[in-house]
Amino acid sequence: MARIAAIVEDMFEDSEYLHPVEAFEKNGHRVINVGMKKGKTVRGKKQGTEVRIDESIEAVSPADFDALLIPGGYSPDKLRAHSAPVSFVRDFVVGGKPVFMICHGPQLLITADVLRGRRATGWKSIAQDIRNAGAEYVDAEVVSDGNLLSSRHPGDLKAFTESAIRQLSKGE
Amino acid sequence: MARIAAIVEDMFEDSEYLHPVEAFEKNGHRVINVGMKKGKTVRGKKQGTEVRIDESIEAVSPADFDALLIPGGYSPDKLRAHSAPVSFVRDFVVGGKPVFMICHGPQLLITADVLRGRRATGWKSIAQDIRNAGAEYVDAEVVSDGNLLSSRHPGDLKAFTESAIRQLSKGE
Repeated sequence: MARIAAIVEDMFEDSEYLHPVEAFEKNGHRVINVGMKKGKTVRGKKQGTEVRIDESIEAVSPADFDALLIPGGYSPDKLRAHSAPVSFVRDFVVGGKPVFMICHGPQLLITADVLRGRRATGWKSIAQDIRNAGAEYVDAEVVSDGNLLSSRHPGDLKAFTESAIRQLSKGE
Repeated sequence: MARIAAIVEDMFEDSEYLHPVEAFEKNGHRVINVGMKKGKTVRGKKQGTEVRIDESIEAVSPADFDALLIPGGYSPDKLRAHSAPVSFVRDFVVGGKPVFMICHGPQLLITADVLRGRRATGWKSIAQDIRNAGAEYVDAEVVSDGNLLSSRHPGDLKAFTESAIRQLSKGE
């Protein structure tokens, strides 16, 4: 069983949280919602899905988790305006533990400046940002590069989640 | 009198459209709302301000206008997922006519790859994207570099709009 941090703020893309989280839990993993404030309820962009923050980002470290999930929508752009989520994501990537990101998720890695020399994908609006951050942007449903797993949009969710679950089972 | 294109999509930052547009019109300028589809109504992020698109981006060229306004919010990220707005903004910047952008506005210039070697500001979440695009990010309420005028957030609107109006009067 893996402990997976899901880092979320308001305006996350509902399906990009719900789909992987349900699959992770069905496979026996535990998901901990990490955000700006413990106890706060954040809401999804399209369906208003409510997610309660289990742990404040200030109170946790990558050592507490086995993997990180970064759903897209506008949540990553809101999070990267603060230093704590950026540091958390940077430490996670540098530490080598699995990072699953989709859609606008890579924005957090761009601000953390940890995409240089990596291969990644993401929503097409951030393709140039990913390239400018020193990464190779690959237009594919799932891009795997070491500990980084990335996908473009909700249409990639099935392949994204299956790849993430395979990566988690390798780590056991 | 200048003809100013305001390029907008859903989820624009209400005040970053309303404040400069009202001031431009009060000063005798004309604002034309340019967007993905003529006749469509787009809505602001916070107050749901309704803006009717006067001209489709496909039907206009920078030659039709004297200046460009790019309000922030999530509108720029939505627009830059399409090639027509990106080409329009690129041609505007390269053509040397005034471009007024605020908050997330520079995202369109990043995707158009026309920030290299320029000085600009924007909302703090996109600071690293601006730097990675080859520009110097300046944390100031108004940054002026040739035809580019940029500001960070709604708190800069007074200085932003006054600078834009001065730049328009120089062009007459």
